[in-house]
Amino acid sequence: MARAQFGAETSTGGEFVRQPNRFTHRITSDGSSPWPVEAGRYRLIVSLACPWAHRALIVRRLLGLEQAISLGVVDPIRDERGWRFSLDEGGRDPVLGIEYLSEAYLATDPEFQGRVTVPCLVDVRSGQVVTNDYPRITLDLATEWRDLHRPGAPDLYPAPFRAEIDQVSEPIFRNVNNGVYRCGFATSQEAYEAAFHDLFGELDRLSNRLLGQRYLVGDSISEADIRLFTTLVRFDAVYHGHFKCNRQKLSELPVLWAYARDLFQTPGFGETVNFDHIKRHYYQTHEQLNPNRIVPAGPDLTRWHDPHGRASLGGTPFGEGTPPTGLSLI
Amino acid sequence: MARAQFGAETSTGGEFVRQPNRFTHRITSDGSSPWPVEAGRYRLIVSLACPWAHRALIVRRLLGLEQAISLGVVDPIRDERGWRFSLDEGGRDPVLGIEYLSEAYLATDPEFQGRVTVPCLVDVRSGQVVTNDYPRITLDLATEWRDLHRPGAPDLYPAPFRAEIDQVSEPIFRNVNNGVYRCGFATSQEAYEAAFHDLFGELDRLSNRLLGQRYLVGDSISEADIRLFTTLVRFDAVYHGHFKCNRQKLSELPVLWAYARDLFQTPGFGETVNFDHIKRHYYQTHEQLNPNRIVPAGPDLTRWHDPHGRASLGGTPFGEGTPPTGLSLI
Repeated sequence: MARAQFGAETSTGGEFVRQPNRFTHRITSDGSSPWPVEAGRYRLIVSLACPWAHRALIVRRLLGLEQAISLGVVDPIRDERGWRFSLDEGGRDPVLGIEYLSEAYLATDPEFQGRVTVPCLVDVRSGQVVTNDYPRITLDLATEWRDLHRPGAPDLYPAPFRAEIDQVSEPIFRNVNNGVYRCGFATSQEAYEAAFHDLFGELDRLSNRLLGQRYLVGDSISEADIRLFTTLVRFDAVYHGHFKCNRQKLSELPVLWAYARDLFQTPGFGETVNFDHIKRHYYQTHEQLNPNRIVPAGPDLTRWHDPHGRASLGGTPFGEGTPPTGLSLI
Repeated sequence: MARAQFGAETSTGGEFVRQPNRFTHRITSDGSSPWPVEAGRYRLIVSLACPWAHRALIVRRLLGLEQAISLGVVDPIRDERGWRFSLDEGGRDPVLGIEYLSEAYLATDPEFQGRVTVPCLVDVRSGQVVTNDYPRITLDLATEWRDLHRPGAPDLYPAPFRAEIDQVSEPIFRNVNNGVYRCGFATSQEAYEAAFHDLFGELDRLSNRLLGQRYLVGDSISEADIRLFTTLVRFDAVYHGHFKCNRQKLSELPVLWAYARDLFQTPGFGETVNFDHIKRHYYQTHEQLNPNRIVPAGPDLTRWHDPHGRASLGGTPFGEGTPPTGLSLI
């Protein structure tokens, strides 16, 4: 199962090497691709457990794209055929009509043999996967889908800050987002320790950066914050124990812990977090790490609601925009 | 290996049920047993990783019995034949001349089929195991061996407090000492959660008890403190992650964390703690819990030396006695 799923992504030195994203078409607004921006045409498939999918869920919510892009949620527990729609009535996604996400992958590429991943955007008419290229998905939601954003949607990838957002995000990806997986999926002590060193070195640098500023880039929430948040929110619940990322808990790193709580308590973030899916997924899916599949009862997650005290650093969460309102459609 | 070692100790409900101690002879001072107290006659075999053995190590040190009772230390990593003397030259205990502790068990009972455990006291002349009855071993060191104690040795089991020490120690054994194993070795979610509830309920009660008093019973260190300490000192290093005892870290429970640091910094305690043996033993021996045998790089253990601030609660660590001095023979 998990061993087979990730076995092809381990180097001879025991390092975890994430597979490339298979489907990298873009949905654009200017006719430059066969996939035009269009309300109701695409379905976003996520696991609420998955940090890569979580980015898209937050961005969709912040931008008010819930009506334009429908949402399918897979079961946090994969079986031997991978991500499945067993939370839906009859075990099928009600729009795509499939039981396993792999069906959409194979409908798009009958030769596909890699690991089936979330998030992906599926063309509802053809049932084909347009993209599972998660870093591009969120950027395109922020830029190409602008005509369908809600009134007051924030600019999550503002032109003047793009270079800085990209620059900050690169080591966050390498050392933190993917870094926790490099810790957890290492199969040698050396590969694990190198990943651990990179992870906590980066968290220390981020703590310094965020000591005097509320957000990573500029004065409001950007793509960079969303990318960091989806790893931080899982840190104490799963990465600290399950992936052995245990120099400290997030809750022992005061700056990052307050920063993460600030985001958690901002509309669009906390309501997209499902700790039940997160914990069950990691602890019950990776049998090579947790053969007995027991899910820890800790830690105490109520502390995510503690005051964060970061408003005094200035900045406005949504810049000139407004918070999302109404019910979140997840 | 570990699965085989502990498989016989799992109930049908997935609970860990510790085997009884096989050898329960007592070494006495009054001629009531065939094993008289005698300097140089017995060898204490421990693993520095093992909390049950650790009790005996601390008591031997506090009472100054190092010259009277020699010490053998097994490798923290068991192989398929169990505890072994591979740290010693030639892979043999220099006094007993054996490679595996199981040899002493089988020399005593050729039919023995259970799990070979530490601590045990071995009669050097015959090579036979006198006792592996760890709760009795320390009490007898404190009482029967009194003639061989160093000058100034504390009374760890004072007659007026014995009933209270026994009473406090019983739930500590059930919910804490053995409770962490019940969490870690549970094979069902229900058995794990019951053990987790018992463990943290007891830690909360102990926090309350220790809020206004420096030691568990009376005004100085007793057997009860030693029994609690050997679990607490392993808590963040192994039990929190490896055994999923993760409601909080010990370092997040302020009263118990200060109490444990106080003991750690008291002569006779900290110098008997070997975090390297502790971490490698648990993470590399229990393949059913950690198949890749990777040892976490965290947590930060330097904090054990932080000031504890508990002296103001009154009491004297050794009562009318004095701290142990000189080099610890481990």
